[in-house]
Amino acid sequence: MAEALAGFRPRRRTRAETVPLSAALRRVPAEPVTAPHPLPGFARSTVDGYAVRAADTYGVSEGLPGYLTDTGAVRMGAEPDVSVGPGAAVAMPTGGVLPPGADAVVMIEYTAEAMPGTIEVVRPVAPGEGVVRADEDAKAGEQIIPNGRALRPQDLGMLAAAGVTSVRVHARPVVTIFSTGDEVVPPGTQALKPGQVRDATAAALAALVSDAGGTPVYAGIVPDDPGALEQALRAALPATDMIVISAGSSVGTRDETAGAVARLGPPGIWCHGLAIKPGKPTLLAECGDIPVIGLPGNPRSALVVFHLIGMPLVRLVGGCTRPPPEPTTRARLARNLASATGRLDVVQVRVDDRVATPVFGLSALLSVLTAADGYIIIPEEATGLDAGSEVDVIRYA
Amino acid sequence: MAEALAGFRPRRRTRAETVPLSAALRRVPAEPVTAPHPLPGFARSTVDGYAVRAADTYGVSEGLPGYLTDTGAVRMGAEPDVSVGPGAAVAMPTGGVLPPGADAVVMIEYTAEAMPGTIEVVRPVAPGEGVVRADEDAKAGEQIIPNGRALRPQDLGMLAAAGVTSVRVHARPVVTIFSTGDEVVPPGTQALKPGQVRDATAAALAALVSDAGGTPVYAGIVPDDPGALEQALRAALPATDMIVISAGSSVGTRDETAGAVARLGPPGIWCHGLAIKPGKPTLLAECGDIPVIGLPGNPRSALVVFHLIGMPLVRLVGGCTRPPPEPTTRARLARNLASATGRLDVVQVRVDDRVATPVFGLSALLSVLTAADGYIIIPEEATGLDAGSEVDVIRYA
Repeated sequence: MAEALAGFRPRRRTRAETVPLSAALRRVPAEPVTAPHPLPGFARSTVDGYAVRAADTYGVSEGLPGYLTDTGAVRMGAEPDVSVGPGAAVAMPTGGVLPPGADAVVMIEYTAEAMPGTIEVVRPVAPGEGVVRADEDAKAGEQIIPNGRALRPQDLGMLAAAGVTSVRVHARPVVTIFSTGDEVVPPGTQALKPGQVRDATAAALAALVSDAGGTPVYAGIVPDDPGALEQALRAALPATDMIVISAGSSVGTRDETAGAVARLGPPGIWCHGLAIKPGKPTLLAECGDIPVIGLPGNPRSALVVFHLIGMPLVRLVGGCTRPPPEPTTRARLARNLASATGRLDVVQVRVDDRVATPVFGLSALLSVLTAADGYIIIPEEATGLDAGSEVDVIRYA
Repeated sequence: MAEALAGFRPRRRTRAETVPLSAALRRVPAEPVTAPHPLPGFARSTVDGYAVRAADTYGVSEGLPGYLTDTGAVRMGAEPDVSVGPGAAVAMPTGGVLPPGADAVVMIEYTAEAMPGTIEVVRPVAPGEGVVRADEDAKAGEQIIPNGRALRPQDLGMLAAAGVTSVRVHARPVVTIFSTGDEVVPPGTQALKPGQVRDATAAALAALVSDAGGTPVYAGIVPDDPGALEQALRAALPATDMIVISAGSSVGTRDETAGAVARLGPPGIWCHGLAIKPGKPTLLAECGDIPVIGLPGNPRSALVVFHLIGMPLVRLVGGCTRPPPEPTTRARLARNLASATGRLDVVQVRVDDRVATPVFGLSALLSVLTAADGYIIIPEEATGLDAGSEVDVIRYA
């Protein structure tokens, strides 16, 4: 598994495109963004009070106030029409432009109007106090947003502040999803014939693709016929950035999927079979630079593997080099868990009051996944975990 | 803060609407969803092998194999055309329908074709082994998806499996965002006049609203005039589920915002001022059943408060009673942090190798938020945190 995660690194990357800020949340910048101008662009007051020369307040105190001459006021959003000379004080709103001559702002709480035109000051200020410098939020040309990390709400705020109203981002990777299996029918099929099952995997995979920043394209259900699958895959290649096949679950159809993928062309199959439970029959391949993932037929196995292997690949192809943090909870394991060494075990758990209780059930059961709050990973080298162990639960968001 | 989070519970809830499964990711079901039929609907094999009567395999072993008569095969997706009598074995693909008469499936690994028509079995199976029961994933009428929790990828899979192709969900709450301040200009303003700042808060707030499942509506920048604000708020009320005002930062404009909100009508202002840093000047109000939040003028303070107070309200109005887990990281604090008791402090931090390093800077600076990987909360009762303390960092996703 570690080898697959680190070693299978298809070269495919999506092209860059320009999107407006209003559509840029969670998009991945293709290049760093720099501030076109210094921010905020002018020295601003951070408090309501009086702009002063700091030196004029040295030594003042409650017992020995200083007295300054009120020489005017600064209006919000306007250039000051006064400057601050020695012994002068100019009324300031929070966010107002620091007038020429002033180097600090005394908070209104430490002032009083001693008499009309005279301001009493009872606390000294140091130069720069109560003031944001003209380039304190960003210098002109300074990087304000890195590339490779999905844009967060505050990043959009920073871009707006800098007047950057559109961003060059990686196009969302198009991920084409195929289902296979003679028994698989569309979810909309109301009356099932004996032996038929509705396609549960494709809907869930599409959601995981969206969560990873991709655009899922559902290519439908391909019958168990290697020729048909190969043809369908070839037809999808020119317009996709990645292919996911939820393969038939029986040995025969799995082999047929591998055969069809191998015939697509070089470099071909990277691995077939992963040391993970559930999810062993996973297939990783490349056709040209396009990654192809063959998933196990059981919906639950398919989703576990796509979560661990597929979503990081979608992010990689979409230019995301700094994936978002996964929600985790530290919890105490409610019971012993066995595991074979040399195999990574993914165990679904409920979490309640920092206790993780495994949800057991066959890998064919989706209800195990819907009942779970998250999962724990028993590493390849472990033979199991004891009840009471501290575990990190990766939570489903 | 605890009082505000627990006590301010506006009654507003969005109506229910029906959406197709393909648009249901992260939507919040308005009612629980039950399985219309048992799932998978028929007893299925979970392995490739032979359907048998379990009793026919009792006592067999590698040294003393049992022999069964190969009486046919089940095809994927088709009704079996054979039944399993005593001493019989029927070839099964994974996922195939268990034929009548059989109660277990022996894995192919424990069988061999001893001679044409005769299957050798070297391991016994118990009844039910290798089989998923017809209602093991869900019984008919059983709840498969709860209301009040946003739909996750696996939930969509379960709904698809059950043939549920549309879901009744809460409408996304419409959250109308107002900016105020004579100094505030749209982000698209290229050349700022002295004293002007671009509206950074609205873009970031819109993103936080989306993250919480709401639909942000940007209502523009209102000048510092209580009449104008009141009129704009009144105009928005009929078509919104919530109002957010990023208020002017000076005392005067804050008071004007409070006045305009108070005049909107009962029940009115719930609180004005929160024991939080940054974010003290926050205003919480209701007009009818519509929550109104007045945020501090500093973009950073506004975003911190909206993260803590606003997003839970958006979720509440949108019917989400089980909010998603927040990503957290346990880390060691890099330096001492002071805090006043009776006030909740939100400190932005970078996280590297499980060490949380505070990002300091004035609350007017957005760069503090863009540089941060998350934040820690110093609770109201604490006087600070020592360097080396273990802290929970809430990560920005």
